[in-house]
Amino acid sequence: MDVIEYTPTRDQYAYTFGGVEPAMKVAPGTALRLWSDDAFGGVLRSIDDLSSDKVDLRFVNPQTGPFYVEAAEPGDTLVLHLVDVEPARDWGASAAIPFFGGMTSTDRVVTLQEPLADTTWIYELDRDRNTVSFAARHSDHRIDLPVEPMLGTVGVAPPGGEVRSSLVPDRFGGNMDTPQMRAGSTVFLGVNVEGALFSIGDGHYRQGEGEACGTAVEGAMTTTLIVDLIKGGAPGWPRIEDDAHWMAIGSSRPLEDSWRIANAEVVHWVAELYGLHTMDAYQLCSQVAQVPIANVVDANYSVVVKVAKALLPTADACDGIHADLRARAQSLGSH
Amino acid sequence: MDVIEYTPTRDQYAYTFGGVEPAMKVAPGTALRLWSDDAFGGVLRSIDDLSSDKVDLRFVNPQTGPFYVEAAEPGDTLVLHLVDVEPARDWGASAAIPFFGGMTSTDRVVTLQEPLADTTWIYELDRDRNTVSFAARHSDHRIDLPVEPMLGTVGVAPPGGEVRSSLVPDRFGGNMDTPQMRAGSTVFLGVNVEGALFSIGDGHYRQGEGEACGTAVEGAMTTTLIVDLIKGGAPGWPRIEDDAHWMAIGSSRPLEDSWRIANAEVVHWVAELYGLHTMDAYQLCSQVAQVPIANVVDANYSVVVKVAKALLPTADACDGIHADLRARAQSLGSH
Amino acid sequence: MDVIEYTPTRDQYAYTFGGVEPAMKVAPGTALRLWSDDAFGGVLRSIDDLSSDKVDLRFVNPQTGPFYVEAAEPGDTLVLHLVDVEPARDWGASAAIPFFGGMTSTDRVVTLQEPLADTTWIYELDRDRNTVSFAARHSDHRIDLPVEPMLGTVGVAPPGGEVRSSLVPDRFGGNMDTPQMRAGSTVFLGVNVEGALFSIGDGHYRQGEGEACGTAVEGAMTTTLIVDLIKGGAPGWPRIEDDAHWMAIGSSRPLEDSWRIANAEVVHWVAELYGLHTMDAYQLCSQVAQVPIANVVDANYSVVVKVAKALLPTADACDGIHADLRARAQSLGSH
Amino acid sequence: MDVIEYTPTRDQYAYTFGGVEPAMKVAPGTALRLWSDDAFGGVLRSIDDLSSDKVDLRFVNPQTGPFYVEAAEPGDTLVLHLVDVEPARDWGASAAIPFFGGMTSTDRVVTLQEPLADTTWIYELDRDRNTVSFAARHSDHRIDLPVEPMLGTVGVAPPGGEVRSSLVPDRFGGNMDTPQMRAGSTVFLGVNVEGALFSIGDGHYRQGEGEACGTAVEGAMTTTLIVDLIKGGAPGWPRIEDDAHWMAIGSSRPLEDSWRIANAEVVHWVAELYGLHTMDAYQLCSQVAQVPIANVVDANYSVVVKVAKALLPTADACDGIHADLRARAQSLGSH
Repeated sequence: MDVIEYTPTRDQYAYTFGGVEPAMKVAPGTALRLWSDDAFGGVLRSIDDLSSDKVDLRFVNPQTGPFYVEAAEPGDTLVLHLVDVEPARDWGASAAIPFFGGMTSTDRVVTLQEPLADTTWIYELDRDRNTVSFAARHSDHRIDLPVEPMLGTVGVAPPGGEVRSSLVPDRFGGNMDTPQMRAGSTVFLGVNVEGALFSIGDGHYRQGEGEACGTAVEGAMTTTLIVDLIKGGAPGWPRIEDDAHWMAIGSSRPLEDSWRIANAEVVHWVAELYGLHTMDAYQLCSQVAQVPIANVVDANYSVVVKVAKALLPTADACDGIHADLRARAQSLGSH
Repeated sequence: MDVIEYTPTRDQYAYTFGGVEPAMKVAPGTALRLWSDDAFGGVLRSIDDLSSDKVDLRFVNPQTGPFYVEAAEPGDTLVLHLVDVEPARDWGASAAIPFFGGMTSTDRVVTLQEPLADTTWIYELDRDRNTVSFAARHSDHRIDLPVEPMLGTVGVAPPGGEVRSSLVPDRFGGNMDTPQMRAGSTVFLGVNVEGALFSIGDGHYRQGEGEACGTAVEGAMTTTLIVDLIKGGAPGWPRIEDDAHWMAIGSSRPLEDSWRIANAEVVHWVAELYGLHTMDAYQLCSQVAQVPIANVVDANYSVVVKVAKALLPTADACDGIHADLRARAQSLGSH
Repeated sequence: MDVIEYTPTRDQYAYTFGGVEPAMKVAPGTALRLWSDDAFGGVLRSIDDLSSDKVDLRFVNPQTGPFYVEAAEPGDTLVLHLVDVEPARDWGASAAIPFFGGMTSTDRVVTLQEPLADTTWIYELDRDRNTVSFAARHSDHRIDLPVEPMLGTVGVAPPGGEVRSSLVPDRFGGNMDTPQMRAGSTVFLGVNVEGALFSIGDGHYRQGEGEACGTAVEGAMTTTLIVDLIKGGAPGWPRIEDDAHWMAIGSSRPLEDSWRIANAEVVHWVAELYGLHTMDAYQLCSQVAQVPIANVVDANYSVVVKVAKALLPTADACDGIHADLRARAQSLGSH
Repeated sequence: MDVIEYTPTRDQYAYTFGGVEPAMKVAPGTALRLWSDDAFGGVLRSIDDLSSDKVDLRFVNPQTGPFYVEAAEPGDTLVLHLVDVEPARDWGASAAIPFFGGMTSTDRVVTLQEPLADTTWIYELDRDRNTVSFAARHSDHRIDLPVEPMLGTVGVAPPGGEVRSSLVPDRFGGNMDTPQMRAGSTVFLGVNVEGALFSIGDGHYRQGEGEACGTAVEGAMTTTLIVDLIKGGAPGWPRIEDDAHWMAIGSSRPLEDSWRIANAEVVHWVAELYGLHTMDAYQLCSQVAQVPIANVVDANYSVVVKVAKALLPTADACDGIHADLRARAQSLGSH
């Protein structure tokens, strides 16, 4: 299986879902190896680089893409299987951006208080030990943390002619910022426009659930993925399947609405997978769901609802496409 | 180490935190073995028992207690170490109560729609296999699920003379409905009144995160715990330590406020445990926190923020009281 | 018609709804003239009195009462007609209390930011001109504002044995902080316990909608009211009728839930008053409702939904008790 | 003063803010008379026309425009003075759209309940009496209500290349659905793109605050307005000035965030108008603000914060442009 490699030049970065000409056309079944810049466009390189000087919040999360998927039409299901998500630089950056994040007032949660101190942290990557190193700014603490690479943003063009900032997560995917978006995951997204026009970006070398300060260990990334397409069957909201879980992600405000969205999506999915009545699926999920928060800092807040396959009988979604993609991924070889 | 056993009679059930005379006085260091009835007071015994007939929502989550802890004064820290949490009946019950739960309008999220069908599920317990059995009401599906016993409610009397329903989680603990409240956990609660007046109840044979339908696999429980007291040092909100995690629980509305509360509590705890500046603790927790939702169905919604000890250097909270309690628990023997 | 006068001593102040012995028993039909202290218990008397020094937030909004209403039983409707609400001092006070209010992080909307400056404003009352005088603290501006006296708190004991702080608005009334609670208004509250146990307090010489900074022009007040009782018919949430409007008040979080509560209450009231189907009442109210926010700063946020009588056909609530009380109030004479 | 008249053909309707070619270029100072279709594109013409059959929610609120304002650049302030807003048909329509509105679960406030009955109401307009007639669907009630024409949507193209549905209110204005958007009002909107690209639509013959059922008395409208431009000085969020009030509108979720946005905007405006310190403006506004909810049903919820000019000393915003526009409007004559 061949892999198409693509690294955008800086002027090819996209900052929206929708509203951008495709970088290329790809056929379902294609494997892509994509380089993506970090959320800051690579401009925070030392602790002296402050976000208030260097970062324009209208142009963050540069996207690699969008990709036009041949034959994809509104109502279809775009399937993206993440084969590998690997750090493409030897350092990541994080920042407490003034009036951005979860432990500060923001442009939405407005108060009259002063902002927190604009602060940047640089995390050195140790490839041998597979760690990034937290270095405290106000003391000498250094703590090595495991690298757990993931993509903050995976999305398609929205419906109705809308164009959304790559800071936004919503029904079209986007900036969901969940650690579940990692190698081994198969993502299902409803197609809204011809060609789907998906893009990825905002790699995180690791991220806590909630992304509390507003930024993860942001890093350039090399992502290998397989693109596939199912005609029809578009899910209401993004779904993820991996070897262990059925998952859905809701993104809205307030946070309970994000949960309601994701929980209903999983209830309906479980009902459909197992032939259960909705009320029985509701009851069953109530006793088995895991519900990690993804982010409480973006334009919408995101919640993941997941159900462990191990707790339930065997079932296949979409004719077992996840297992099939896992097998296909093997043929890509390691690198 | 002796264990005091206590099983309340039905007329000794408490339905509030605060406002109830203590069931007994106990000295710090005491071990208790407590029987508690299920959330419904044991009245849902078959699928024909409907909550709208049998359950008065003003009197659910019957509490065992309260217990007056000698020497406990406002500002102190009550420490409860859960040694064992064991099903006390051979079945549990769950229900979709009209206008109660997360996938329905409620008395707060008011709409003009009809309620979902009032439905009861009974889960048979298999002690040998340590499972409860989900039996679908609208088809023949049966799914055995592992028993993972926990307590929905653990709390103390609130401050300022308030008395709160045992349906409510808040700063005083209460109906937090988190699966983290299980054997092996050490709970830290701020004392608000002389004697602390803690109580427990609302045992769950298992519960998904979020407690989506509003009720878990509700079951009578036998809980063995050790009571201890630290003078002063009351945390702002409930904290839990187990062998693997530092945790805090926030309970409010909307759900993002619950998260803000819990996340700030953990940030301050980590800052204190490791001698980090608040901004550094904020950054560090942003990259390592796990954030499971506890409930989105109670009078307040609850979120847990937890940090894995394995990711951080070794540290002791409160002079290592958790490890000490683990050791003391050994001396209680198994049963 | 006689008027019973009552001024509590400081040790007779109540700080909760429920949990307090009645100050006196009164028969339905009784007129009361009640003195109430300001929200701060009168301790902020100059701009040098800071809330962080002088005010304990567990003991604010001192209540005058509670009053035991003879024959009142759970399920009945307590009717309070406000005849006069008159400033009882020559000054009022307002404060920006650290971490309290709408334009600051709070103990629920937690951030890591510093608080706003603790600041006190004193408003001199000019009885002849019926104004209070805003005096800027950071410049020489003085602006005279009309006195528009109202009560922040009017409530009864909650159900289920709960006791709630006088800072809390909820289904039982309490700290709703709406300017609609003024002379000429008739308040309908569901009775939860024998005797209803109502109390009043938290007088405001004037208040903007939202009570943005967390405090109004707080002032001691003399309130004349008539107590009445309707057997049965308890509304779900507090209702107010005045000469011009039908109103209901919802108090919850987030603010949209407060609105949902109040709007549903008004829809049901209008359906009942005019014999409309619920869907028609829903439609009609959608086109005529006025929806002023009451507070966004208390333990629950409050929203008023009101419908102008002038827009609708004539109707009587509860056999015209409001008009009857207006007439009875005349016999009390002015003062 | 000449007036440019413009009536779009159906294929010229715009359904987004941004992403649409301008209908025409206009110079600052131009008067326009614009016909706009109703929110449903005129397809609900009888009570037998159901929204589920006739309305596609991706294409509602057809906009008239956008208009390219010469010389308008990002950071400038677009000024629109509404001279007349007049019904252009003899009937209006309202509907309870399944899973849309405030008293139902929605695609965000997701539950598993059935929808409310899809229902349409037609309001006949009586031009002589200036009323629309509510006709109950489930009984014989008819109630004539005063016509109070307003525009649901007034907005400009968003920043950052975003394109938003005409169902959305946000920082760029849009579907704010406030009755304050009526003849006599001067609207101030920050310009985000060259030419501003403003449009209007979604006329309401009248609307209650909150727009509870999700739709007002929706009607085609003829709007006369004067376009003006102030270089620089873009407000953070939409501001409105009329003869009686200073106002700002916040649109977000949850509803308290909308309020925080609008309240902060007004506090800053009052501080600037009167030369007050922010803390003094915060205090003053807390005692004088009126806070009507605009909508609790759109993609964002909207709140208006307004301050009565009569309560404050005289002040001019933007060199008295509102008074100037009022004068210029006179010269347009009545019609």
